[in-house]
Amino acid sequence: MAHVNEDYLKLPGSYLFSEIARRVTQFKIENPQADIIKLGIGDVTRPLPQAVVEAMKGAVEEMGRQETFRGYGPEQGYDFLIKKIIENDFLPRGVELALDEVFVSDGAKTDTGNFQELFAQDNILAVSDPVYPVYVDSNVMAGRTGPVNQNKQFDKIVYLPCTEENGMKPPLPQTRVDMIYLCFPNNPTGMTLSKEELKKWVDYAKENRSIILFDAAYEAFIREEGVPHSIFEIEGAREVAVEFRSFSKTAGFTGTRCAYTIVPKEVKAYDAKGKAYSLNPLWLRRQTTKFNGVSYPVQVGAAAVFSPEGQKQIKEIINYYMENARIIREGLKNAGYQVFGGINAPYIWLKTPGNMGSWEFFDKLMKEANVIGTPGAGFGAGGEGYFRLTAFGTRENTEKAIERIRTKL
Amino acid sequence: MAHVNEDYLKLPGSYLFSEIARRVTQFKIENPQADIIKLGIGDVTRPLPQAVVEAMKGAVEEMGRQETFRGYGPEQGYDFLIKKIIENDFLPRGVELALDEVFVSDGAKTDTGNFQELFAQDNILAVSDPVYPVYVDSNVMAGRTGPVNQNKQFDKIVYLPCTEENGMKPPLPQTRVDMIYLCFPNNPTGMTLSKEELKKWVDYAKENRSIILFDAAYEAFIREEGVPHSIFEIEGAREVAVEFRSFSKTAGFTGTRCAYTIVPKEVKAYDAKGKAYSLNPLWLRRQTTKFNGVSYPVQVGAAAVFSPEGQKQIKEIINYYMENARIIREGLKNAGYQVFGGINAPYIWLKTPGNMGSWEFFDKLMKEANVIGTPGAGFGAGGEGYFRLTAFGTRENTEKAIERIRTKL
Repeated sequence: MAHVNEDYLKLPGSYLFSEIARRVTQFKIENPQADIIKLGIGDVTRPLPQAVVEAMKGAVEEMGRQETFRGYGPEQGYDFLIKKIIENDFLPRGVELALDEVFVSDGAKTDTGNFQELFAQDNILAVSDPVYPVYVDSNVMAGRTGPVNQNKQFDKIVYLPCTEENGMKPPLPQTRVDMIYLCFPNNPTGMTLSKEELKKWVDYAKENRSIILFDAAYEAFIREEGVPHSIFEIEGAREVAVEFRSFSKTAGFTGTRCAYTIVPKEVKAYDAKGKAYSLNPLWLRRQTTKFNGVSYPVQVGAAAVFSPEGQKQIKEIINYYMENARIIREGLKNAGYQVFGGINAPYIWLKTPGNMGSWEFFDKLMKEANVIGTPGAGFGAGGEGYFRLTAFGTRENTEKAIERIRTKL
Repeated sequence: MAHVNEDYLKLPGSYLFSEIARRVTQFKIENPQADIIKLGIGDVTRPLPQAVVEAMKGAVEEMGRQETFRGYGPEQGYDFLIKKIIENDFLPRGVELALDEVFVSDGAKTDTGNFQELFAQDNILAVSDPVYPVYVDSNVMAGRTGPVNQNKQFDKIVYLPCTEENGMKPPLPQTRVDMIYLCFPNNPTGMTLSKEELKKWVDYAKENRSIILFDAAYEAFIREEGVPHSIFEIEGAREVAVEFRSFSKTAGFTGTRCAYTIVPKEVKAYDAKGKAYSLNPLWLRRQTTKFNGVSYPVQVGAAAVFSPEGQKQIKEIINYYMENARIIREGLKNAGYQVFGGINAPYIWLKTPGNMGSWEFFDKLMKEANVIGTPGAGFGAGGEGYFRLTAFGTRENTEKAIERIRTKL
C-alpha cells in the first residue's frame, strides 16, 4: 500500500496567493462591473526589455537551424550567462566567484524551495515572522517542522518576530538554529539590513556552524548607499551562506523564468560525526539528477539583460516601479497610515487602521476600493494587522489605487 | 550546526552521463585528432520544427509589448497547451482527462525526480534492472532506499531483472511493493509491453494499492499496432497510475524544456490509518509551492507541436530517428551482435561481445571506433554486459558509426 507523505497534510489548506485568487474570483462573480486594481501578488506589469526580446528571438532561430541547434545544456547553466552574472552582479561589489559556484535555474521560488533537500531532517530552521511562505512550506513538506501549534505556527521552527519595535529587523535567535532564511530587501516588509546588521548574522552562523539561506531576489531595487546587495559583501559569508537571485522582478522575467543561486565552495554542512561536506557538489548532484537546465533561448535572453541596452532598459523599468513605490508610500503616509518599506524595495508594508485583522482589511479594501493587496497574516502570525501592497502595477493603476484608498476607506 | 542530508552521501560518485563526459574529455585531450561520434546520451540532433520556431518568436514578441505581456502563469501550465495535449495525445486513444489532471513542467526528469516527494519514506519501491538512474537516485536522496549492499544495489529497493530470458520485460515482484517505476518504451532497453502485459501491472497495483509511476517519454516512437502509448489505455489505470510525458524527444525540446505529467484524481495514497488521499491536489500543492510554471514562449512552442504543420514536421523528425534505429539495429545484427529494442523506441540495447564488461566495451568502442555509447552497467547491475546506442544522431554519423563498429572492432 502506497503511503502518503503525511507531512504534506500539515500544510495550511492552500497557498496564500491561491486563496487570494479564490476571493477575487468570487468577488468578480458578484460584482462583474467592478474595476479591480491588483497590487497583491508581486507580479510585474512592464513588458520584457527589447534587448531581451531581440536576443531571445535570435536564440529561437538558432534552435531552428541544424548548424546552431542546441540540445541538453549544462544543468547548472551556460557559461556565457554565468560569466555575465559574475562580471555584472558581483565583481563590481568586490565579490569574486568561480564559474561553478553559480547555478542558473528556472526560478528563485524553485531554488529556495528545493535547497533544503541538502539538509538532514533534524535541522532547526529560523525564519523571520512575517515570512515568504515558500521557506516554511517547503520545510513542512520535508518533515522538518513538527506539527502546527495553537498559534498556527510550527513547533520546531524558530520564528524571529519583525515588529514596529525592532524596525522590522529580525533579532538573533535565543536558541540554537541550523538553517536561517533571510530575505533582504525583505518580502513582505520591504525593509533592508545594513552591512553591520547583516554581519551579525554571518558571525552568528560562523559561531554556530549554521547556514544562511539568503534570498536577494529584490536587490536590484536598493537605492540607498551602504545597503548590501549580496551577502557575500560581508566578510566570512562565503563559509556560511548561499544566495538566491532572480531575473523575475529585475528584468520582467516572471513569465519567462530565469534565476540563479550562488553556492560558494566553502559552505559546509556536517554529518552526525561532525565531518564537513561542501554543499556545492551536493547541489550540483541534486541539480544534475532532478533538473535539466533552463531553456536555451531564456538563458540567451537573461544574458542580454547585461548588455549596455539591456542595462539601460531595466534601469528604466526599475525606476518606473520605484516611482510607484514612492507614490504608494507617500500617499499612504499622507492619508495617515503607518508604512514600512518602499524605499529600497518594491513592497510597502502598512499597518491596518484601528488594529483591523489583515484578512478583514483585505476584504474591506477589495469591496470598498476594489483594490487587491496581500493580507499580512498570509505571511505568518507576525503579519497579522499588516498588509502588503506592491509597486509592480502600472502607474495609472497605482495612482488610482492610492486615490481610492484615500477617498473611499 | 547544520546537518547534511546523509542520504546524499549514499549516492554513487557521479551521475552516469557526467562520468561518460569525463572519459570522453580525457580521451579527446589525449587524441585531439579523433573524429568522435556520440551515440551515448539520449540527446536529439534535429533542429526545432519550424512551426515551433515561428510560434515561439511570436510569443517572445508578445512578451515585449505592454498589451500582450504575461507575468506569472498558472504553475500547472496554460489551458491553451493542456487542451491541445488532451485532444491530441489522449482523446484519440480513448483516454479522457480533465484539464486539472495535466501538469505542464520543464522536464520529465524533473517530474520523475520530484514526484516521489508525495510519498512517505517507508514505501518500498520497485524498479526494473537496468533502469533510468533518476528513479533510483531521487529516492536515495529522499532516504527511501537504505544503504548500498555488496551488489552495488540498495537494500530496500526491489529490483526487477530484465534479462534475455524474460525478453527484457520486468517480472511482477515477489514481495509487496508500494511504488513501481515503469518506463515503456523502455530506456535503456528499447523494449515495450503489450496491453495485456501492462494490464498485469495495473491489476497488481490495484490489488496491492500500489502506485505505478509510468514514464512514457518515448511513446511517440512506437511504430507497431497494439503497443499502448499511455498507461491510461488500460482499464483501471486511472486509480493507480501517474504518467510522465515529454516534448524532449518527440519535438526536439531537450534544450527548450517542456514536459507534462498526468495525475488522475482517482489515484490515491494512504496515511498510517489507511485513510485515502488523492495525489492530484497534493501534486498541485507541491508544484504551486516549489515551481512557477514553464516559460510562456516555451509553452506556446509546445502548443505549436500540435498544429497541422507541427504534426507533419515532428513526424518527419521521428521517421528520421527511427530510420537511424533501423540502421543501427540491422547493422549490428548483421555484424553478429545480439540486439534488443530499436523497433518502437530510439534506443538499441546490445549484448557486449564475449561477455565483456560494459565499461570495458565503452572504452574499447571509444578507442577503436571513436564511437561513444552508454555502458549498460550505468543503468544498474542488471545492465552489466550490455550497452546502449541511441538513434538520435545524424544519419551520416549513424551510418559511419555502424560501419566502424563492423570493421574496426
